[in-house]
Amino acid sequence: MEAWPRLEPDEEIKVGWRTLVRKTFEQPDGRPAEYVTKDAIGKVAVAIVALTQDNQVIIAEQFRPGPERVLQELPGGGAEEGEDYQAAVLRELHEETGYVSDDVSYLGKVYKDAYTNTSWHYYLAKNSHQAHDQKLDDGEFVNVKLISIDQLFENARSAKMTDTEAVFLAYDELKSLMQRR
Amino acid sequence: MEAWPRLEPDEEIKVGWRTLVRKTFEQPDGRPAEYVTKDAIGKVAVAIVALTQDNQVIIAEQFRPGPERVLQELPGGGAEEGEDYQAAVLRELHEETGYVSDDVSYLGKVYKDAYTNTSWHYYLAKNSHQAHDQKLDDGEFVNVKLISIDQLFENARSAKMTDTEAVFLAYDELKSLMQRR
Repeated sequence: MEAWPRLEPDEEIKVGWRTLVRKTFEQPDGRPAEYVTKDAIGKVAVAIVALTQDNQVIIAEQFRPGPERVLQELPGGGAEEGEDYQAAVLRELHEETGYVSDDVSYLGKVYKDAYTNTSWHYYLAKNSHQAHDQKLDDGEFVNVKLISIDQLFENARSAKMTDTEAVFLAYDELKSLMQRR
Repeated sequence: MEAWPRLEPDEEIKVGWRTLVRKTFEQPDGRPAEYVTKDAIGKVAVAIVALTQDNQVIIAEQFRPGPERVLQELPGGGAEEGEDYQAAVLRELHEETGYVSDDVSYLGKVYKDAYTNTSWHYYLAKNSHQAHDQKLDDGEFVNVKLISIDQLFENARSAKMTDTEAVFLAYDELKSLMQRR
């Protein structure tokens, strides 16, 4: 199967702080198909499974407006225009939790949703240590928590976080870290 | 941390075929915070890791307008209003692929995104068999493929599908099925 050709330029639609994109494609039967997809084209989100020196997971607990729940989130956020993705995730880790690490690896890319333009890029950090206080943006309220790797697995299995995919991508490595202790 | 109280009733905003919701919450510092979130409140999506009798995974290959790529998707879609979620996912499996199964278990619920109202519910089906032809909706173009469990893992690790979380939730069971062959 081939990707469908785009029939018209995409059109951005602003709704409050949210950007949508109207796209028209040519279906395999030749008819046009219009979709409205979420977030600007090329938008990138990043998040990180960050471990302390004794392999505790650094969690940014926060209220999430979609699910309307307080979730045990991985530190992360949006990469800024032109920003290197790894630099972006380390900036978010630093801002949200005060932790830093220089032992960072890439876990992989994820498309979460058929109708969302954003791609998510996930990272794993080991040997993180708290270097500073949080530097939260206006309107950001984050509780920093340390949890076990087992508790991270449990959270990922019970809808307590939105970046389950990062736990999947790090799963085999996290399990081997647990066994090595 | 407590969930933030809602200050005003939510307001639905229609953009083409897409529904957004404007929500206003009271932040912990007492100030109002407005968010525009994707999809109607209470919207439910379902998808299924469906295995044939010889443990091949049934894939609904299709073009996805958000990523603008052809992805190796799990069969699934939206639950209709009042529809039982398991009935919904078996209906989608049947419509998209022609396969049926009466050996179905629940894998779990996922919130994919901080700013999306939809919850995703995932299922595992074993011993599926092809009972009928596809019954695709207008504008749906789906290639049915059978792949190995190993290939499913590889797809989930390399952004070839959007429901990576279902692979995570089924991972230990799928691994044990591979070893039993």
